[in-house]
Parts: sequence; C-alpha cells; structure tokens
Amino acid sequence: RYFHFCKLPGRVMGIRLLRLTSVVIIVLLLVAGALTALLPTVKDDKMPNSRREPKTQSQSALDSFTLIMQTYNRTDLLLKLLNHYQAIPHLHKVIVVWNNIGEKIPEEMWNSLGPHPVPVVFKVQAVNRMRNRLQNFPELETKAVLMMDDDTLVSAHDLAFAFSVWQQFPEHIVGFVPRKHISTPSGVYSYGSFELQNPGFGNGDQYSMVLIGAAFFHSGYLDDFQRQPEAVYTLIDETQNCDDIAMNFLVAKHTGKPSGVFVKPVDIRNLEKDTNSGYSGMWHRAEHLLQRSYCVNKLVNIYDGMPLKYSNIMISQFGFPNYANHKTKM
Amino acid sequence: RYFHFCKLPGRVMGIRLLRLTSVVIIVLLLVAGALTALLPTVKDDKMPNSRREPKTQSQSALDSFTLIMQTYNRTDLLLKLLNHYQAIPHLHKVIVVWNNIGEKIPEEMWNSLGPHPVPVVFKVQAVNRMRNRLQNFPELETKAVLMMDDDTLVSAHDLAFAFSVWQQFPEHIVGFVPRKHISTPSGVYSYGSFELQNPGFGNGDQYSMVLIGAAFFHSGYLDDFQRQPEAVYTLIDETQNCDDIAMNFLVAKHTGKPSGVFVKPVDIRNLEKDTNSGYSGMWHRAEHLLQRSYCVNKLVNIYDGMPLKYSNIMISQFGFPNYANHKTKM
Repeated sequence: RYFHFCKLPGRVMGIRLLRLTSVVIIVLLLVAGALTALLPTVKDDKMPNSRREPKTQSQSALDSFTLIMQTYNRTDLLLKLLNHYQAIPHLHKVIVVWNNIGEKIPEEMWNSLGPHPVPVVFKVQAVNRMRNRLQNFPELETKAVLMMDDDTLVSAHDLAFAFSVWQQFPEHIVGFVPRKHISTPSGVYSYGSFELQNPGFGNGDQYSMVLIGAAFFHSGYLDDFQRQPEAVYTLIDETQNCDDIAMNFLVAKHTGKPSGVFVKPVDIRNLEKDTNSGYSGMWHRAEHLLQRSYCVNKLVNIYDGMPLKYSNIMISQFGFPNYANHKTKM
Repeated sequence: RYFHFCKLPGRVMGIRLLRLTSVVIIVLLLVAGALTALLPTVKDDKMPNSRREPKTQSQSALDSFTLIMQTYNRTDLLLKLLNHYQAIPHLHKVIVVWNNIGEKIPEEMWNSLGPHPVPVVFKVQAVNRMRNRLQNFPELETKAVLMMDDDTLVSAHDLAFAFSVWQQFPEHIVGFVPRKHISTPSGVYSYGSFELQNPGFGNGDQYSMVLIGAAFFHSGYLDDFQRQPEAVYTLIDETQNCDDIAMNFLVAKHTGKPSGVFVKPVDIRNLEKDTNSGYSGMWHRAEHLLQRSYCVNKLVNIYDGMPLKYSNIMISQFGFPNYANHKTKM
C-alpha cells in the first residue's frame, strides 16, 4: 500500500507529505514545551539551610541586600515580621539568627506555608549571645546587609529609600535610629539620645551613632568585626549589649568620618507589646542605658581613643509621602 | 648748679635720678603707644575694586566662602540684604555684580556706613547680562561660592548648615531651590517643579537641578564655565535666563552624578514685594518658564545628550530648629 501511495503523481505528493508531517511534529513539540513551562514548580522538603532557590534569582548581589534578623523568645513577632520583610523590594535573602537555644526552628510551619519570595535561612546558635548576629555568615552573598531587631517593623517605602541612600554612602551605617555620646568635663563619656545636651557644635543637635538594629551597612564590616580585640567580644558578652556601639566604633575608625547616616523614617513601629511571649526586650532592663555609657568608655579604652564623630545630616525622601513635602513658603 | 646738684651725697643720688628719668620716659612712651593703638582707623576714598582689607582677615580660604550677588534695579533690596549677609558666619568677602549700567555704585554711602565685617567689592559691568555673575572674578579667593539672587534672604542658620553640607559634598551645587526636567514620549523635555508629574523612579518626586540663585558651589565651576561652547553663552544672552540650568548641565557632566544636593530651608524669604523700584524680577515674565523648557532642550542639543540626573535626597538639620525634630513615634 505504501508503494501504491508513493506512486501518486510524482515525487511532489511525497514531499508535501513529508513537509506536512514535519510541521505537525514541530507544532506538537512546541505545544509540549509550552505546557512544560506552565507546569507549577514542585515543592520539596529539603533542610532549611539549603532552601530550594526560587527559579529566578535575578537580583544581582550588587543591587540587593540580605536581611539579618536575630531572634530570641519572640517567635510570634518573628513570623509576623517575616511575612512583611520577605516582600521588601531588592531583598535577596533572609538570615534568621536563632538564639532560642534548644528550641526547634519553625521549619515545618515555614515550609508548609511556602512558597516564599526569597530564601530564608535559619541559623541555629549554640549559645544565646547578642553578637551572634555579627558573624560572617557563609550564606551572605550581597554587599549590603539590612539588620533588623525582631520587634521592629519599618515600612517597605522607608527601606527602599534607605537602601538607595546606602548605595550612595556604602561605607556608612545608614539607618533609622540615631544616638550620641557626649563628653563631660571629667573626660568620662555618656550615652544617650536627644534628651541629652547638644554636643555644642553650632546650632541644633548632633548624632554620633546609628544603631544597627534598623540599618543598612556593608557586609565587609561583618568580616572586620571578626578581627577586633578580644576585649570587645568580652564586653559584649558580659553586658549582652553594646554590639551596635562596638560596630559604630569600628566603622568610625575605618572611615575617619561619622559612622552613620540618619534617614528619618516615615513609618517605623515597635511591636514589642504585640508579643504573646511576655518577653519585652533587653532595653527595658534597669541598667540598660547605664551599661551603654559604660560600654562607650570601655571601648574608648580598648581602642585607645574616641573615634566616633558627630553629624547633623538628616535625610528624608523628596516628595514622599507628601508630594509637596519640600514646599517652601517664600 | 648742675655740679652743685651732682655733689649731693655721692653717685647714689645721680643714679637714682637717672633711673627715675628713664622710668618716666618709658612710661610716657608706653602711654603714647597705647593712645596710637586706640586711634580710630583713618577712612579713605580708594576705588571700590581695591577695598581696604580689614585688619584681621583670619578666615582661611578653605573654611570660608565668597558671596556673589548680582544686582539689577533693586539697590534698596541689595543694601538690605548686604546688611544681613555681611554678618553670616564663615563669610570671607562679598562680590556685588553691578548690572545697573551707567549708574554709580553706592560707594559713598557704603563707606560712610563702615566699618563692615568683610570686604565688599562692587564689580561694575559694561553690559547688563544675566551671566555676568558667572565670571571668574580675580577677587575670589575661596574654594566655595555662595550665590544669591538680589531679592532672596536666607537665614544665617540655614546658610551655616548648608555650608557645612557643601563641605561634605564639594562637587555638588548645595542649595535651597530644587527643580526638575521631565521626559515626554516625544523625546522633548519639559522644565518645572513639583507641580509636574514625578519622573517615575519609585515613590515620590525627584529633582535634577538645584538653582544657583540660592546655593553653594565650588569656585572651580566658574572657571569651567568660561570654557563652554559658545552656543551656551548665546543661549543665555538671548533669553537673559537659564544660566543656572547651564551650570547644572556643566556640573552633572563633570561629576556624572546628580548636580545638586537639596537642603530644605527653614527660613527663606523673597523680598521682591519690598522693593521701591517697581521692578519685580525676571521670573514674572510670561515666557519665563517656557524659556526654561526651551533652554533644557537647547542645552541637550549643544551637549549632545541629557547629563542631568535625578536625586530624591532631601537634607535637613538634625535637631534644629526643634531639638526633637527627628523624634519618631514608634
């Protein structure tokens, strides 16, 4: 029958058939390819430390940042905040520093509520230390770190703007919480905020630190932090405090300039009161502020000098949220 | 009698007399010296271009700035403003660019109301040109220039702060009046302020120019300005406008970054209405803004591209005027 078919008017009919068959096959292949691309991605139960990377990890390491959030005894807040922060523009990855010693990470729950916009890595800690968050995590791929306390919510708008500011000042700690030290005639320093006297350099107030619990900074400083005098680690471990002051000393020494750049937040919230854990954060301890003054003086000893410098630059976003927020009555 | 005197009890009396005489002479000389120092300095009638320098010109050229103020047909405002500006901290000298062709500078009055805190130089111009203020004046000794329109008053507090900001951003135009250009689908640019649409880079507005009529910039840019294409001068002379837009193009090309840094003024005032001259400034002309859009497009032709870049950084002074102006409700 085949031969009979082939004997139809000349070769022409045979070639036409060949063409038709080829076309049909190609079309079928294309359709199959399209269907494959449209298939939903398969979920898996790998360990959190090697979370499945989303198909498109297109954020370049230069144009995105890693959120590092240390957590202790406030897993409910942590999870609330993760829902918020996982969706911030330019976020590359989240590293949760798990200070809940002996307690299981909420891996199952986390997986069951996937997929998630970015990878989230839970780093289980051996000891509950304040400075655990200042490790040079191997999972850290970006130049920029966003460090947040586990009770602080900053709006995506503020974060997107502050990240763009950090990109213009990459050697500084760019963040939302300014603090200062002041000198006294005795030479002993004191730590505080704007309720303290102004340092007296012209009009207005000055700040000499930006706290890292709500700030962007260069990941290189985590590397630098590993090479500090032992006495710095001892100080932080003794007080379970002052890691942020130590970082400001480090950055100021490194740059010879004010360590921080203050960006005035539009929407920053402390969620402490919202926790069910009953735990309300280290800064409520009676000795907290006195400790911080103590730390300033200890660090001056350790570093043999006061490297912190003052700044009075306050940065806001032009035309946001109010498009005329810079309007000047002349 | 002399000998008789000398024959008093021995040499002793003679020596005592000598001592006494010496002391009297020395005292008289000291008194004379003191009186000379207290004499009022003698006024002179030298030409304004070589104003007598005040006795102590201690402001270093690095830590002070020169005010350049061009004036046309508003001498009453000029004199009001000179009283204000001559007392600004860190001011080195004032250069008044006298565009009142054929009219005598108020030299006599100025001298009769001396002494003045800083030298003020009146530069008589041959032709009334907008770009006269952009000359490379030989009297200019400082790295920083403060350029002010002759109807604009900015408080000393704002100026002191903006000067400190300029010192941190010396390659930028640091000033109080932000403006922008926008693209349109046709490729034709338009000029304006915040009433125009946002350029569409994320939230909020952007600015791409800071006007030089109330701004600090590096004196080197005056030098650069002398070396621009002839078409730029022609444009400015034809429109009697746009010298500031041209400067922003120049600076943006030079740095590859946004030309300006906007400092939000606390107290900036337009004194136009206060003039007795009846003259109310170029920006009231009907075609003023259309001219500026025209200039943007012309300059893009001349420079073969759009060098202006957008910024949304708005700088304010931390803790001034309100010491808690950065207080955040958490």
